[in-house]
Amino acid sequence: MEVIAKYYVETDLPIEKAAEAIAAEQSTGTWTEVERERLASDLAARVVRAEGNFAYVAFPEELFEAGNIPQYLSVVAGNLFGLGALKKVRLLDVIFPQRLVEAHRGPRFGIKEARKILGVFDRPLVGTIIKPKVGLSPKDTAEVAGQAVRGGLDLIKDDETLTDQSFCPIDERVEAVMAELSKVEDETGKKAFYAVNVTSGAEEILERAEEVVGRGANMVMVDVLTTGFSAVEVLARGVKVPIHVHRTMHGAFTRDRRHGISMLPISRLVRMAGGTNLHTGSYLGKMAGDREENDSCRDALREEWYGLRPVFPVASGGVHPGMVRPNLDGYGTDCIIQAGGGVHGHPSGTTAGATAMVQAVEAWVAGVTTEEYARSHKELDAALKFWSR
Amino acid sequence: MEVIAKYYVETDLPIEKAAEAIAAEQSTGTWTEVERERLASDLAARVVRAEGNFAYVAFPEELFEAGNIPQYLSVVAGNLFGLGALKKVRLLDVIFPQRLVEAHRGPRFGIKEARKILGVFDRPLVGTIIKPKVGLSPKDTAEVAGQAVRGGLDLIKDDETLTDQSFCPIDERVEAVMAELSKVEDETGKKAFYAVNVTSGAEEILERAEEVVGRGANMVMVDVLTTGFSAVEVLARGVKVPIHVHRTMHGAFTRDRRHGISMLPISRLVRMAGGTNLHTGSYLGKMAGDREENDSCRDALREEWYGLRPVFPVASGGVHPGMVRPNLDGYGTDCIIQAGGGVHGHPSGTTAGATAMVQAVEAWVAGVTTEEYARSHKELDAALKFWSR
Repeated sequence: MEVIAKYYVETDLPIEKAAEAIAAEQSTGTWTEVERERLASDLAARVVRAEGNFAYVAFPEELFEAGNIPQYLSVVAGNLFGLGALKKVRLLDVIFPQRLVEAHRGPRFGIKEARKILGVFDRPLVGTIIKPKVGLSPKDTAEVAGQAVRGGLDLIKDDETLTDQSFCPIDERVEAVMAELSKVEDETGKKAFYAVNVTSGAEEILERAEEVVGRGANMVMVDVLTTGFSAVEVLARGVKVPIHVHRTMHGAFTRDRRHGISMLPISRLVRMAGGTNLHTGSYLGKMAGDREENDSCRDALREEWYGLRPVFPVASGGVHPGMVRPNLDGYGTDCIIQAGGGVHGHPSGTTAGATAMVQAVEAWVAGVTTEEYARSHKELDAALKFWSR
Repeated sequence: MEVIAKYYVETDLPIEKAAEAIAAEQSTGTWTEVERERLASDLAARVVRAEGNFAYVAFPEELFEAGNIPQYLSVVAGNLFGLGALKKVRLLDVIFPQRLVEAHRGPRFGIKEARKILGVFDRPLVGTIIKPKVGLSPKDTAEVAGQAVRGGLDLIKDDETLTDQSFCPIDERVEAVMAELSKVEDETGKKAFYAVNVTSGAEEILERAEEVVGRGANMVMVDVLTTGFSAVEVLARGVKVPIHVHRTMHGAFTRDRRHGISMLPISRLVRMAGGTNLHTGSYLGKMAGDREENDSCRDALREEWYGLRPVFPVASGGVHPGMVRPNLDGYGTDCIIQAGGGVHGHPSGTTAGATAMVQAVEAWVAGVTTEEYARSHKELDAALKFWSR
């Protein structure tokens, strides 16, 4: 079996030559002929197809160390980005054979398992990021979280830059937020996840996650690209809560559609590693992604894949109730839609903002336009008016 | 104290506005006004300077969790790359205050300590990557390594894609190579490092490194960008050998000089984390970097920095003896110059290729042109002729 990688390439070379350069650099070759190359010839990658700006390269499965995600990346997304003969090159997709996928356990908690914890089955989940991003005390954080859940939200998450700083120590924060969520659940029956950002070094992250779960956390969050894929793997094996995966820093290599790495291979690797939720870009928002790339990530996270549990795509970034519909049209029912400023910035505050987001989702589920639904739902109405100023 | 980040920005906004957008997104702000922002105002980042295409943003030190490199990246290199208002944005440099630098131990083995092991003090070190990149058995790998050291090389390293595949199991490989290097040392007195690629997931890498060091390895290697900075930190704390740090995948975000992340902040973080050697780009070669960026990485790795030990910059990628001079003119004496194909592809084989590389370095040290030196050194002469075909 082979691993097939698809690249977009800009080069002055004929595309076949460019594809061969990638195949050589990333398998057995180098820039000059060396002795013993014949010894390695069984491991040489081959060009499957090269046409227009697209190159498909097949790497023998034996080149890959099963279970070692950093090593997979060194082959399909390694030195090739620096090849002088290529002006631009983007890794668009990687198809992994069964043996490599099955070397990973995938999510301990997938979409179904996470839904079961909440008791929410028939609609997209709605989340928020605590805002301001940083600066609130544990007590203030808990208050904001409680207000959001009272408005009907399913998930509250830390900002990606909030970990364990002195202005908001993680242990105190978890205890304060979980106490507040428990109080809200007692009063209203509404359950919600709190994704605690445990992002930290490899030697620390599991211990930190165990600590916060011991204090009641029902979800952990990790910035996968700054920390490494294996952090997700360590968490999926080590703690018995779902994992919210943020992709901060991704724009450094995803933003240029003609260079770098697409979110699609990243999505596949996060599913292998065991994330429950993954930020994959919004269809409309301040950081909106490419529609085709969003679609492909959605499918890669949810389609049948050698038995690995499906993962929630997360639409996030500058979303407000008026932007819910295009995002849900894209991601469908099995997704999470998040708003930070789009909840807390509501003119009547966090609870009203959360309610407005939930109403916008209800409208989509009911097949009613957001504007029509707003006529009988005052929080949504206020939100639409406020953000169309 | 503050952390100062320098960005290159392309935008239709006035540069001051763009700089403010970065400062807000990466500290306390979001796209819309939210309640309680005043609570967080002490943690707001501020624009220090914005001029032409350059923005300097100062982040309060309190925003950073001391010791947590992934968290540092989430602030200075996080969501900002996705901001729609910016067309391109590149993180050029980060100046860290003393407290954050001192939260890291840096290299256990710096330049001086690595030189002492080899007994080589007054010249650049010369290394090679085993070629073919992958496909050799442990026995063949050892044979190639021995040939290279007989030619006078100081360092032999695995290819970045070679870890622990079945065609060349790591334990057997280390034992075979170290036995061969020991034999060469007995015969010739020449000591050399073998950088064994232990790249693997966070839960595995320390154990793997301990295992290979137990089998005699005198250096370990890690692909920092696919694995994560904390892998380097774990190794620097956990094993008593120098660490060779490869940067495979970097081109995905370093290649476009106007977007992504420069090697300079990466270099600073690797020094914090404890690498001994870091690939920083060549001044001439198949993957040659930008001269100014190379210079700045060189300085960041070697200058006085709150007592952290200095790190070797490594020039590598398509180098052959004819390319030695410009690379050494750039990096000076305290560097490592590597050639893979440029050693093993020599018309008379690996030992002659290694000798030619060493001769090219000797010529530079002696202040003699490579061509003049080649007149009295036949391996160098053959190399220059062969690669000027």
